[in-house]
Amino acid sequence: MKVRFALVLAAGLVAVSGMAHAQFQKPEDAVRYRQGALYVMNQHFVRIGAMANGRVPFDAKAVQENAAVVLTMSKLPWAAFGPETEDLKSKAKPEIWMETDKFRGAQNKMMTAVAALDSAARTGNLDAVKKTFGEAAAACKACHDAYRQ
Amino acid sequence: MKVRFALVLAAGLVAVSGMAHAQFQKPEDAVRYRQGALYVMNQHFVRIGAMANGRVPFDAKAVQENAAVVLTMSKLPWAAFGPETEDLKSKAKPEIWMETDKFRGAQNKMMTAVAALDSAARTGNLDAVKKTFGEAAAACKACHDAYRQ
Repeated sequence: MKVRFALVLAAGLVAVSGMAHAQFQKPEDAVRYRQGALYVMNQHFVRIGAMANGRVPFDAKAVQENAAVVLTMSKLPWAAFGPETEDLKSKAKPEIWMETDKFRGAQNKMMTAVAALDSAARTGNLDAVKKTFGEAAAACKACHDAYRQ
Repeated sequence: MKVRFALVLAAGLVAVSGMAHAQFQKPEDAVRYRQGALYVMNQHFVRIGAMANGRVPFDAKAVQENAAVVLTMSKLPWAAFGPETEDLKSKAKPEIWMETDKFRGAQNKMMTAVAALDSAARTGNLDAVKKTFGEAAAACKACHDAYRQ
């Protein structure tokens, strides 16, 4: 029983790391990929923000659709910050590769906050969307402040 | 009964077009967004291709994860081909804005093919993945041949 659990766990870890270890043909591809993913994520994120901040009328379905895209995108960029991309031109600060654990922590904070936003969006409750949107925005900002020029 | 059905249908159309009519601050943002979305889609699509073509060992879970990303991405770029983007520098051919119905048809073919690939991926059946990957690749190519420089 213990052995089987360990095997299932190991298989899960391999699968997760298999997804995380994305294969890019060239380091430049990784940079373009992560920039594209973050840009698309941001576009959908700000659409939620416009509703959370009252600039655009609240539309529960639109919030839900945008949050689902943000959730998908939030998982993608990180595999594209490999050490082979460190010297390429981008806004990424060298700290990314100097404090990889802290950078990983910032990623996890953002993904957790975005997952909470997605859950709130699925309830259709504006107050919950406002609260979780603010927390997700803070997680984005913290990471940008530390790791983006 | 008929009235109610018509209202539900109308509400559905509004919701779909609400999602399709994305709001970009500047036309340049729309171009960057659609290029980012298509680039991210392509990266995940070729990872499935590597397994469908036997260059990389078949991993049902990886195929499923990549197909889910491709499915999400396949819906995004089209709202960013608004007429205000026609004169901006990109690989988009003018035919996109000259034959909008045909372009819409090509989008729908691709989205349908990608949805079939996603369904096949979730079965974990390599033959089904191979078949639907080939069909999706053909749909990508047809649209690129007609509408991309």
